[in-house]
Amino acid sequence: MFKTTLTEAQSRIGDFLTDQMARLGDDRIAEGMRYATGGGKRLRGFLALQSAALFDVPVERALYAAGAVECLHAYSLVHDDLPCMDDDDLRRGQPTVHVKWDEATAVLVGDALQTFAFELLSRAEAGTAEMRVQLVNALARASGAEGMVLGQAQDIAAETAGRPLTLEEITALQANKTGRLIEWPALAGAILGEADPAPLRSYARAIGLAFQIADDILDVEGDAETAGKALRKDAEAGKATFVSLLGLEGARTRAHDLVAEADAALQPYGEKAQALRDLAHYIVTRDK
Amino acid sequence: MFKTTLTEAQSRIGDFLTDQMARLGDDRIAEGMRYATGGGKRLRGFLALQSAALFDVPVERALYAAGAVECLHAYSLVHDDLPCMDDDDLRRGQPTVHVKWDEATAVLVGDALQTFAFELLSRAEAGTAEMRVQLVNALARASGAEGMVLGQAQDIAAETAGRPLTLEEITALQANKTGRLIEWPALAGAILGEADPAPLRSYARAIGLAFQIADDILDVEGDAETAGKALRKDAEAGKATFVSLLGLEGARTRAHDLVAEADAALQPYGEKAQALRDLAHYIVTRDK
Repeated sequence: MFKTTLTEAQSRIGDFLTDQMARLGDDRIAEGMRYATGGGKRLRGFLALQSAALFDVPVERALYAAGAVECLHAYSLVHDDLPCMDDDDLRRGQPTVHVKWDEATAVLVGDALQTFAFELLSRAEAGTAEMRVQLVNALARASGAEGMVLGQAQDIAAETAGRPLTLEEITALQANKTGRLIEWPALAGAILGEADPAPLRSYARAIGLAFQIADDILDVEGDAETAGKALRKDAEAGKATFVSLLGLEGARTRAHDLVAEADAALQPYGEKAQALRDLAHYIVTRDK
Repeated sequence: MFKTTLTEAQSRIGDFLTDQMARLGDDRIAEGMRYATGGGKRLRGFLALQSAALFDVPVERALYAAGAVECLHAYSLVHDDLPCMDDDDLRRGQPTVHVKWDEATAVLVGDALQTFAFELLSRAEAGTAEMRVQLVNALARASGAEGMVLGQAQDIAAETAGRPLTLEEITALQANKTGRLIEWPALAGAILGEADPAPLRSYARAIGLAFQIADDILDVEGDAETAGKALRKDAEAGKATFVSLLGLEGARTRAHDLVAEADAALQPYGEKAQALRDLAHYIVTRDK
């Protein structure tokens, strides 16, 4: 049931992005943008759609937020995969953008995807002017030098720190690097629904951290082919992870506690939040 | 007189950015963002302030547009200077960001500067919600895969095209690569002033092209130390420029014709547009 809902949302977001990007033509940058957003789990976009659905926001409107967060996430992956960053050749089972084309193309494709995210949010169809400008402001704060980019820089700094991070440090780093961009689509639902964002923020913070812990578990236990990317990189690099700090069982327990927290935060929404509850469970049980 | 007006605007924009970036702390990314926006001619920001002034928009409001376009321009320079792009070591007489720090820092500083541009435009102080969302939309379209980034990709493609570009091709390329981001601050003034953008668009298109022709002349005639960047790169690379296509005198004539066009476009604004007229003249006579 949840898998069907997720699959439907994934293809709806995919169709939306295809439509929106049609105007960009078929030069290399547009092609790279389509390639970089062409696969993946689209969990952030799904989260935007489901959070908006709690408040009966029309899906045609929520798709702008969903598409925007997927473009923003894709930009961060394209740049993170660059040789000067994580130097990854494989993403979602396909060659990364700089491998398929070249580094300059990857820089520009990432740049243009970030721009496109903000463009989508600014479209008249995405909400009232007040909603759109709130979405832009929240996304900028979540993804910039106080959010995602700060987390990426903290991650790089950790590699040369000469000592592994503490649990507190890695929690703060991950809250920036991945947490903020998981929080944003949940908040987007509340902005579009003109609703109190507090319960969704608590939910999103819990699943954001659970997501990262699950990623660290996958990095140790997962299958690279299923995951579609290189694994075991953290352990090989001697980096602190939730698994190295909490142990495999400790990490699993913490992830499941966070899912319970996320469940509890959704209490005000009753039945309507079932897909969000299912998403929290999916996040810690996925194999990619 | 014009030089004083420009210098005052430059330092006002600098102070504004310093204030706005104070919140970002002093980690490496924030430091890099300050460094990358710390100098330069700030002509785009000046253009935003002067266009807004035509319609008596308060300068406190116009500074958000001015700051945003300077951040966006700075991001494009930081990424353009990367080894995989133009591979420049010097910018505004200082080491480029990837030379002063490293490539990963330069990628992230550029990314965060782009985000910050959109954040500035989304601030409540920047205008009504309708104005802010129009500013965001126009900046995204000007700078993304249909504008500046497209121009950067066209520039890279030209290098491997196996033949020099025609005048028509280089005009189209430059309209994207530099023209759109010169047009945006002029349009921003009209958006903030709720005014007809047509005259300012004509003005900005003329000075945008004049600016690029002047850059090509400077690349041949200029002094690298005064310019604060490497010169003669285009000729050495055998790239088509306005000078190679029109000759030095032809390029100069074309630039001056464009200044006359820009002057004419400002006719509706009378005396109030004097600084914009002076800016058009400055653009083709500057030595850096």
